[in-house]
Amino acid sequence: MAATDEGLAEPDDGSRMSETDRMKAFSDGVFAIVITLLVIELRVPEYHEGGLLAGLSHEGPAYLAFVMSFVYIGVIWLNHHALLRLIRGTTLALSWINLAILFGAVIIPFPTAVLASAFTDGDTADRRAAVALYALAAALMSAPWLAFFTYLHRHPALRATDVDPEHIRDQRPRPVTGLILYGLSGLLGWFVHPVLGLVLIIVMIVYHALTSEGLRAGPLRWLAPGRRS
Amino acid sequence: MAATDEGLAEPDDGSRMSETDRMKAFSDGVFAIVITLLVIELRVPEYHEGGLLAGLSHEGPAYLAFVMSFVYIGVIWLNHHALLRLIRGTTLALSWINLAILFGAVIIPFPTAVLASAFTDGDTADRRAAVALYALAAALMSAPWLAFFTYLHRHPALRATDVDPEHIRDQRPRPVTGLILYGLSGLLGWFVHPVLGLVLIIVMIVYHALTSEGLRAGPLRWLAPGRRS
Amino acid sequence: MAATDEGLAEPDDGSRMSETDRMKAFSDGVFAIVITLLVIELRVPEYHEGGLLAGLSHEGPAYLAFVMSFVYIGVIWLNHHALLRLIRGTTLALSWINLAILFGAVIIPFPTAVLASAFTDGDTADRRAAVALYALAAALMSAPWLAFFTYLHRHPALRATDVDPEHIRDQRPRPVTGLILYGLSGLLGWFVHPVLGLVLIIVMIVYHALTSEGLRAGPLRWLAPGRRS
Amino acid sequence: MAATDEGLAEPDDGSRMSETDRMKAFSDGVFAIVITLLVIELRVPEYHEGGLLAGLSHEGPAYLAFVMSFVYIGVIWLNHHALLRLIRGTTLALSWINLAILFGAVIIPFPTAVLASAFTDGDTADRRAAVALYALAAALMSAPWLAFFTYLHRHPALRATDVDPEHIRDQRPRPVTGLILYGLSGLLGWFVHPVLGLVLIIVMIVYHALTSEGLRAGPLRWLAPGRRS
Repeated sequence: MAATDEGLAEPDDGSRMSETDRMKAFSDGVFAIVITLLVIELRVPEYHEGGLLAGLSHEGPAYLAFVMSFVYIGVIWLNHHALLRLIRGTTLALSWINLAILFGAVIIPFPTAVLASAFTDGDTADRRAAVALYALAAALMSAPWLAFFTYLHRHPALRATDVDPEHIRDQRPRPVTGLILYGLSGLLGWFVHPVLGLVLIIVMIVYHALTSEGLRAGPLRWLAPGRRS
Repeated sequence: MAATDEGLAEPDDGSRMSETDRMKAFSDGVFAIVITLLVIELRVPEYHEGGLLAGLSHEGPAYLAFVMSFVYIGVIWLNHHALLRLIRGTTLALSWINLAILFGAVIIPFPTAVLASAFTDGDTADRRAAVALYALAAALMSAPWLAFFTYLHRHPALRATDVDPEHIRDQRPRPVTGLILYGLSGLLGWFVHPVLGLVLIIVMIVYHALTSEGLRAGPLRWLAPGRRS
Repeated sequence: MAATDEGLAEPDDGSRMSETDRMKAFSDGVFAIVITLLVIELRVPEYHEGGLLAGLSHEGPAYLAFVMSFVYIGVIWLNHHALLRLIRGTTLALSWINLAILFGAVIIPFPTAVLASAFTDGDTADRRAAVALYALAAALMSAPWLAFFTYLHRHPALRATDVDPEHIRDQRPRPVTGLILYGLSGLLGWFVHPVLGLVLIIVMIVYHALTSEGLRAGPLRWLAPGRRS
Repeated sequence: MAATDEGLAEPDDGSRMSETDRMKAFSDGVFAIVITLLVIELRVPEYHEGGLLAGLSHEGPAYLAFVMSFVYIGVIWLNHHALLRLIRGTTLALSWINLAILFGAVIIPFPTAVLASAFTDGDTADRRAAVALYALAAALMSAPWLAFFTYLHRHPALRATDVDPEHIRDQRPRPVTGLILYGLSGLLGWFVHPVLGLVLIIVMIVYHALTSEGLRAGPLRWLAPGRRS
């Protein structure tokens, strides 16, 4: 495979460009693992004989948190899929930006477990903390996406040949929106009511799931903000 | 790899079609992880010195549940393998249907652990609940398979070129049968006797294992209901 | 990729043959996961302030069991690598034999954890049970390898074109030897002394590691028993 | 894929050479799993109602240890990526050296968890032990890298055709430096102060992250020590 990349031109700042095959394989592996690892937070409840059903029912919030994070990681995977279609090579800096994106995905089981715990056994203060933590994780996850688009905008040699330069510029507002709205969800959950923050997070995830451009490659100007919003 | 898909025609409803390479890799990753994660539910029993063998024997039901779910996930993987051979591209909607199929696989360790627990330490009421939960998970898993076949039937442009349209229509009764029979297993386990429901679930899994068309691609009309049943 | 397999002839018994790409990817995934999952059995010991080092030292057997099983799974992976090089297609039956091989690998973390526990906290009776369990798992693992070679011997159409038929016949004594010697290790560990059984298991694993033909494809008659022993 | 490797010449010592596709896939899988498994050491703290936020804050060291090991495994993956670009085939010995490299990566979650525990709940003696353990794991990890470069230096037939022989020789001081400096970190942490040892480990990881040659293939003499240091 390496042979196909020998001819890659160097980006204009002189940093070396390298193929993306193993980056894709590694990223897909990480997403597949993290979406599957969510299940180990679903634990058999402790129960006395005859109390299993009641114990399972008591853990309702854990199931909701599981579904929510499963969809969320699915959204991120679809978007990441689209992201790596934009490039035809990578540099060391871009590889670290990608690792930062994966970091954002890898931590999700933790705020998910905290959320499930707070809504199962905690009080309102615990739920406020849990919703704020989840929102914080989601908001911070937006930062490396912004870095990715910005870096790609500045290093046109890394762009896949069929990608419209305008498309990349148009993507940059998306992570900023995510950062702001997930941050707002956290503030709402902390200062107003945890359920309100949680609902806004869920609305965000569903919105992203429905509008994910993950698999709509090709005529990319279709994705321009003017048509999408 | 992306290059080989540049020429993909758009499905007739105007939605964008995209290649399936990463969908296959991601799905295989999820199946490989979930079938391996089953083992972490096999735990060293708590025991006093000299009591390890007795402790291990006490956990017999956990081993049976492990084997049962291993075979079940194996069956699903083989069928999924065949499923993705039917298509030559994907859309956003089909990707979400595929994520729903993976969701059905990812949760299996949880009802498996509940089943193992109920048959090790629970009473009949607990076992009823555990069998019903396992059957419910298996029945619900059938729904996205039906959605997949229906979607593919309506979007012929996504079909692999060597797939007989009749074959796809013929597949649609299969998930319906699964939904009904796993649902029936759950009802039997809940209202009659948990062991009865469990036996029916195992019969279903073995039946699917023996008849899995997972790797019988090619002359696909061989798989038509008339010959299979 | 599927396209490259369209022309595969059907094996002589009329069962359908299918490509092995996803079988390889799935198997590699399972091996990678199970070899990595071993680490989650290495747990931080419970300790009072100042007692961490003593706690870690107390868990010495767990580290040995971890290393032993890591090497064991490495051996199995190398052998499996060689195994799949023998075939150019698969059938439903062969896929299930492969799943049985993977089953043998997937369970290893469980007898590993039992072994670590017995040699850390158990008495001689516990260690006997643990060594016998590990040996039983290793012995049973040999069975599907024998089935694989036997099946391949009977279905020559599945053989890769560069594989000498005699080579496949010559492989069949290997899993039988494994079954007998691992079985013997278990009997020794149970009836004579657990350490004796354990030492024999370790000798077997090291022997397999040193002689693994995993990556010596090509002039395969080099591997004939006459030269290997 | 195997077909592309049929023509591989045999290394000069007569051992068989084999393709590296599955070795790459297996290694990527292991790295992806171990970097993701780190998250399962982030556990929901035990708390009484209203105490979740305090419980989370108490676990600050666990988050730092998580970030540190995430970056560390990222560095190793990038370096491993570059490592496998140096070769065009593998032998049984090189496969075992690669498994030893993977072993070094697979164990990281364990010293990470020990470190998190010692800095959360332990005293200075515990922290000394934890820092020394982490440094020991990192130092020992360097050994198989040295073995890899040495083996490759002695078996030029395994080298990828575009790799400068001098480049391989130039790589050999790197793992020696790692072994010495990580060993020094452990000694500092043990005999002087755990925080000092930990800071040196972090400096080492950040240094490797910034200078990782992981994706700077091509004009490899650019990497010669003269320019790198």
